[in-house]
Amino acid sequence: MDRIYLDNNATTIVDPLVKQAMEPYWCERYGNPNSLHTFGTEVHPDLRIAMNRLYRGLNAQEGDDILITSCATESNNTVLKGIYFDLIKKGKKNHIVTTTVEHPCVANSCKFLESQGVKVTYLPVNADARVEADAVRHAITDKTALVSVMWANNETGVIFPIKEIAEVCKAKGVLFHTDAVQAIGKVRVDLQDVPADFLSLSGHKFHGPKGVGALFVRKGLKLPPLLHGGEQMSGKRAGTLNVAGIVGMGLAMELASDNLGYENKEVRRLRDKLEDGLLKIKDVLVISRRELRVPNTVFISVRGVEGEALLWDLNKSGIAASTGSACASESLEANPVIKAIGLGSELSHTGIRLSLSRFTTEEEIDFAIKTFTEAAGRLRSISSTY
Amino acid sequence: MDRIYLDNNATTIVDPLVKQAMEPYWCERYGNPNSLHTFGTEVHPDLRIAMNRLYRGLNAQEGDDILITSCATESNNTVLKGIYFDLIKKGKKNHIVTTTVEHPCVANSCKFLESQGVKVTYLPVNADARVEADAVRHAITDKTALVSVMWANNETGVIFPIKEIAEVCKAKGVLFHTDAVQAIGKVRVDLQDVPADFLSLSGHKFHGPKGVGALFVRKGLKLPPLLHGGEQMSGKRAGTLNVAGIVGMGLAMELASDNLGYENKEVRRLRDKLEDGLLKIKDVLVISRRELRVPNTVFISVRGVEGEALLWDLNKSGIAASTGSACASESLEANPVIKAIGLGSELSHTGIRLSLSRFTTEEEIDFAIKTFTEAAGRLRSISSTY
Repeated sequence: MDRIYLDNNATTIVDPLVKQAMEPYWCERYGNPNSLHTFGTEVHPDLRIAMNRLYRGLNAQEGDDILITSCATESNNTVLKGIYFDLIKKGKKNHIVTTTVEHPCVANSCKFLESQGVKVTYLPVNADARVEADAVRHAITDKTALVSVMWANNETGVIFPIKEIAEVCKAKGVLFHTDAVQAIGKVRVDLQDVPADFLSLSGHKFHGPKGVGALFVRKGLKLPPLLHGGEQMSGKRAGTLNVAGIVGMGLAMELASDNLGYENKEVRRLRDKLEDGLLKIKDVLVISRRELRVPNTVFISVRGVEGEALLWDLNKSGIAASTGSACASESLEANPVIKAIGLGSELSHTGIRLSLSRFTTEEEIDFAIKTFTEAAGRLRSISSTY
Repeated sequence: MDRIYLDNNATTIVDPLVKQAMEPYWCERYGNPNSLHTFGTEVHPDLRIAMNRLYRGLNAQEGDDILITSCATESNNTVLKGIYFDLIKKGKKNHIVTTTVEHPCVANSCKFLESQGVKVTYLPVNADARVEADAVRHAITDKTALVSVMWANNETGVIFPIKEIAEVCKAKGVLFHTDAVQAIGKVRVDLQDVPADFLSLSGHKFHGPKGVGALFVRKGLKLPPLLHGGEQMSGKRAGTLNVAGIVGMGLAMELASDNLGYENKEVRRLRDKLEDGLLKIKDVLVISRRELRVPNTVFISVRGVEGEALLWDLNKSGIAASTGSACASESLEANPVIKAIGLGSELSHTGIRLSLSRFTTEEEIDFAIKTFTEAAGRLRSISSTY
């Protein structure tokens, strides 16, 4: 058995079809799309196809903007700081509502805005690790400029009631942003069904390349650019277009949509099999109910076993897992998401996340169950707390 | 004769060696470098090699930061807005000095900061299309937070006296930033020789991939991040690392350094041959003296011939040129750099830029001279102003 990659919420393998699609843009079709000559213009149809794939994948409509960014971190910063410069600095609003379990790029942007005088409400999650739409409703005041709630949590995989939250915001006349990084390719993301105003995504989370992401901006809305500069994206996001990245992300989006059925049937079956297998270990706890989660994720705590020790043990056996967000993996702090769920400090050090993809095989899951079970036993035998 | 690409100041072909170096990072070594397992850690040595190549290419020292960004536009925005949040909003300084010929990403960031109350001085260029260090010296006041002057101009190719300007700023105790996008691979960029505090670059301008750039930050200096988020780059620039892009840009930097001799001998010889050939056309004007310019660029004006008409004619014959910055090529405005040089409105519509690279051949230059000369004659024969 070769290495097994079960950390698809951190990043994903580039689909070989995506790699192939990017191939011509390095040494052949290398023009700058903003150039007027054929080296520039010949890539316009390719970019149009890619953009159409993104629009279709989100069910965005003509008049909506999809801005290409370098990653969801940039998309999220664009929204939060755009609202700051546009609505907050200029007007009477000074309040943002978000959650305690957002990705660091939303959380730290909010902290930065607090240092600039913005008030931020961080909503907790309930026992199912979910944010409730009612909590959002109650947090909104007439000073609220923006609500930002992720579509699905990166660590637990829990899906938030985004449609309901978006409708609450719409009814209250407050702008709503969702970080959908962990939703694309896992659940249907339909922007005609869900009235979100802004939505962020990152190509490398759904088998596209690293270094490219997007920001959906609902028709009629405007944000000051985070990156001022040239005329790219009608001046809404400057910087030479990353042609290969856009083409790759576009195809990755189409493949994600095409595979949504497979993801929700086969990947879910494998995740459930993995989860059922691991639940046979004594004294383990899985965070939240599986029907509330994206189909690829299980976050499990093994009492008495440090998440990091388990991660190392699994790694030695060739299994890649995570104790939480890769973006905070160098931190020795207790997992902030688990802390936010309110499960206490013991659990906050014992969680481990396994996240599958459509490239995960049954054989890999069988091996993972066996290996995880053995590792948990081994580590418990030397545990001082079990 | 196949198509001829003479628009290397807009973007460049990816060096086939760079493409090859990026190859493993799509479908094999695809881990997130911030992950703790081997998929993440196995790319650390590759990233270290790439970073070392960037440090060597700039002669940066231990303790200096080189932050990876998505492009120079992001790098430039990071500096200008970082200074705004750090020095200007918090302190007593409120003034930035720059030039009238900066790239739109510096110019438009400055305009944005003006809308936030920052005072900006835009220095003009002299008859050689150069900014003078003395002009910088005189523009600095005790309110000046930052001076930002490009190393070489994208349109004319003129090299600015960056060492002198950096020394003026150092002597005055004012921070100095340079957009070196058009200098890398064309002139020696040695940060031990030139005491710049911040320096921006973009991979795709020196045969690296699009979508990745860098920002040098001198040891001891700090900037608030433009992208808040995870712990990447010690929290100074968040976002999942674009591993393929970093590896590619690192190698591209090494190749650029290795080829600096070739660039200054052979590319310069071809540029001079092209320039000499075109100067045989009657009533043409080349902007600035060639010894003041980077070795690959000539900006030429053909009296009575619209730059855009000439560009289209050349394009039909398979030659890719430019009327100026690709980032502003959709604009019908007179070329702002030419306007800034003060050459009047007729000239500002007639300029055309030809920019070579180490991939340009003698055969291509011979064909370009012949084709350009014929095109100029053809267009003059139907010109109403000649």
